[in-house]
Amino acid sequence: MSPDTPAPTADAFLDRLVALVGPAAVLTTPEAMAPHLTEPRGLFQGRARAVVKPASTEEAAAVVAACHAAGVPMVPQGGNTGLVGGNVPFEHGREVVLSTARLNRVRDLDPVNLTATVEAGVVLADLQRAAADADCLFPVSLAAEGSCQVGGIIAANAGGTGVLRYGNTRDQVLGLEVVLPDGRVWHGLRRLGKDNAGYALRHLFVGSEGTLGLVTAATLRLYPKPVATATALCGLDDLDKVTALLRHARAWSGDAVTAFEFMPRFGIEITCRHMPGCADPLEAAWPWYVLIELSSARPGAGAEGGVRDDLEALLGAALEADLIQDAVLAESLDQQAALWRLRESMSEAQGFEGGSIKHDVSLPVSRIPAFIARANAAVTAALPGLRPCPFGHVGDGNVHYNLTQPAGMDKAAYLARWDEMNRIVHDIVTEMDGSIAAEHGVGRIKVAELERLKAPVELEMMRTVKRALDPDGLFNPGKVVV
Amino acid sequence: MSPDTPAPTADAFLDRLVALVGPAAVLTTPEAMAPHLTEPRGLFQGRARAVVKPASTEEAAAVVAACHAAGVPMVPQGGNTGLVGGNVPFEHGREVVLSTARLNRVRDLDPVNLTATVEAGVVLADLQRAAADADCLFPVSLAAEGSCQVGGIIAANAGGTGVLRYGNTRDQVLGLEVVLPDGRVWHGLRRLGKDNAGYALRHLFVGSEGTLGLVTAATLRLYPKPVATATALCGLDDLDKVTALLRHARAWSGDAVTAFEFMPRFGIEITCRHMPGCADPLEAAWPWYVLIELSSARPGAGAEGGVRDDLEALLGAALEADLIQDAVLAESLDQQAALWRLRESMSEAQGFEGGSIKHDVSLPVSRIPAFIARANAAVTAALPGLRPCPFGHVGDGNVHYNLTQPAGMDKAAYLARWDEMNRIVHDIVTEMDGSIAAEHGVGRIKVAELERLKAPVELEMMRTVKRALDPDGLFNPGKVVV
Repeated sequence: MSPDTPAPTADAFLDRLVALVGPAAVLTTPEAMAPHLTEPRGLFQGRARAVVKPASTEEAAAVVAACHAAGVPMVPQGGNTGLVGGNVPFEHGREVVLSTARLNRVRDLDPVNLTATVEAGVVLADLQRAAADADCLFPVSLAAEGSCQVGGIIAANAGGTGVLRYGNTRDQVLGLEVVLPDGRVWHGLRRLGKDNAGYALRHLFVGSEGTLGLVTAATLRLYPKPVATATALCGLDDLDKVTALLRHARAWSGDAVTAFEFMPRFGIEITCRHMPGCADPLEAAWPWYVLIELSSARPGAGAEGGVRDDLEALLGAALEADLIQDAVLAESLDQQAALWRLRESMSEAQGFEGGSIKHDVSLPVSRIPAFIARANAAVTAALPGLRPCPFGHVGDGNVHYNLTQPAGMDKAAYLARWDEMNRIVHDIVTEMDGSIAAEHGVGRIKVAELERLKAPVELEMMRTVKRALDPDGLFNPGKVVV
Repeated sequence: MSPDTPAPTADAFLDRLVALVGPAAVLTTPEAMAPHLTEPRGLFQGRARAVVKPASTEEAAAVVAACHAAGVPMVPQGGNTGLVGGNVPFEHGREVVLSTARLNRVRDLDPVNLTATVEAGVVLADLQRAAADADCLFPVSLAAEGSCQVGGIIAANAGGTGVLRYGNTRDQVLGLEVVLPDGRVWHGLRRLGKDNAGYALRHLFVGSEGTLGLVTAATLRLYPKPVATATALCGLDDLDKVTALLRHARAWSGDAVTAFEFMPRFGIEITCRHMPGCADPLEAAWPWYVLIELSSARPGAGAEGGVRDDLEALLGAALEADLIQDAVLAESLDQQAALWRLRESMSEAQGFEGGSIKHDVSLPVSRIPAFIARANAAVTAALPGLRPCPFGHVGDGNVHYNLTQPAGMDKAAYLARWDEMNRIVHDIVTEMDGSIAAEHGVGRIKVAELERLKAPVELEMMRTVKRALDPDGLFNPGKVVV
């Protein structure tokens, strides 16, 4: 036996994996596996037979084929930043985690075709940078972009702050390379604006949260890079004006609105109270706030007559039409960052006020004011003193409907009512034609709610798709649909 | 028997259909069925057991259930304007045509949510008008819009001239209502910008050409209505400049380019020669032409400093950078229409020059110049004197690669070489990572070529999906994939 050959273990299956990808790429000790077994919110602590890190599509295919042959279930994992438990194994310990961390090459970047072909393990921020270096924009942007991976945002169909103008991750995916559950490779890396040669198979995998196969690479859309951005914070005296302001802003700007985020007074208050460097830039207090951002790729958009002037005119017209009561327009990059800090710190600020019960829901945009009024009434009736903090991507109909505990209540006693609050909110969402999983997915934590609320025909269609593509049920079993 | 009850026929199955939808909605005579059995190019003359026109989703579901119970294959049909034979029954006559013509209600139009929910039989132009009446835009626009139906453009994932800015039909579909092959109804009419509650089932049906079920209604995206449009025709001395001009125009206009269509000198010549009202507006002749259109929804975009000035500045910079050699900017709606007439008459003009062998292909945009050079060389080597007329939506990578016969050749002898030419062109397209079915679909005429050129893994995935959703193979059998 050569010194490079690892000593055989008692486990022939693990030996097989080591033979395929080398010993350094098969993690089996508790210390090495630990970061792959927990998730950001600390809701789950899983176990696994091994964490495997293939370095190429061929290695990934060989590993999947070996797991398939042995009947071992697999959990695809990217940057492990998902918030619904879809990215970690269960507690039983029989699963293998397939980490895409080493599939991290940018294979191609074509600024004329406006596409990038990258492997699943490329970190989102690295893709953004590679695009920017070629004078292009990759528009998916979200809090975890410094560590989440391309494969993960595809599996989750990630949203974020650029959806209003550019769409979700799904809308950026032109082609995929996927290792199918039996180890065959689908080479579907199209980079075409139009392709009607058969079914749109890529859309099965986008948003499937690793339940149908392992995405190893993708061809994604790029856009001309914006050269200028203008940002403003508006105060509104009436929630109903939020949707009218959105319509006004989209039309007035020639649909150049790249962000439209709303926040309640309570959110501004606790953010300014707890988060360093956050301050309310408006003189008076208003019940509702909207952060608007315009962007343009047009040369000269940063100069006079550009997006800043557009935004100023848009706000002036909105004031005149009584759609907003006050507004502040950022006059520097620092001021822009300060306005965004208010919005981006809002989730963390809630932690300082005690327990927070969270919902990631979406509604038709036109129903958001009615939804918030109705849900606020229902949850405060169930628990007087509860402090709702609904905020988020209202331009996409996406509300992070978070509920801060009553002041002074015991935190554990409050969090014990999580399921009860979820049911109240999800029932209203469902009645109002919304979705209980807007941008964070179903994963593990919403499987039962989905089963409770989705029509039986649709659940059966999902199961049909799952059985067809993964007949042995080996890819991320127990997630999304059971 | 009451006078309203039709006399029973010898065919219990047809009696059952009549009982479900009434006698006026079950066509069985050759005269009544005739328009539903041929297609626009006259390539196929099918037969059918009946043409059925349900007036509601419930009726449609009952008809499908009856066909399913009797094992009768079904062919969904909208406006019957498709160009690949997917919308007509085969010659054997055992199929039932499911016409959506009477499912023609606009159920809902929400200008705040920017969505319309319409039934499958609504004519595209009627949807465009309904959207415009609400100060919105439905952006799918194509030659057949006066007669094609919403269900048809969804089944075909239709392209057209607005794709560069707004995407294909697929990108407009937020939700669907579908009668599944066994008669169950999937109520999937979401109208949400974000929804990750399970698999994206709607994308299975979009572009499936009626092979997986009958779409009865859809919720579609709307956009703020453009208030101004500017159009120009440019002359270029080099095909390589087309893609550089596209990149220039997208960046310079802040991505406001809504059309970018290219044409060869030969196409301009025959269009001006044969089509009434068509004239070349440029002084000199150029080997290549590009029609550019900018649109904006911004109030004031029609005035000074608006899209016309943007386009003028864009063209000035393009002239200076030697991306174009000459340009004419339309100064009136009449002049805009005249420039579009050149592009839109190009297909018809080819008919006056004899036989035309057609290809609807797409390539990565950056490869279009190389593709045209290579394909032109290959087809003229195979048949000297052949006159290529490649034109189309180059902004989407979509080339209508049409080949006009050599002058003086016998037309029938030329058209007899259709398959040979297809093979030459499709082989090059495939080698260059393109698609042989860009916006017209596979239907009946490209099934064999798809089987020849697509990877076996992908064909098998398509068959898996087909078998899973239509296990009895009753929906449009023999189309797309066999």
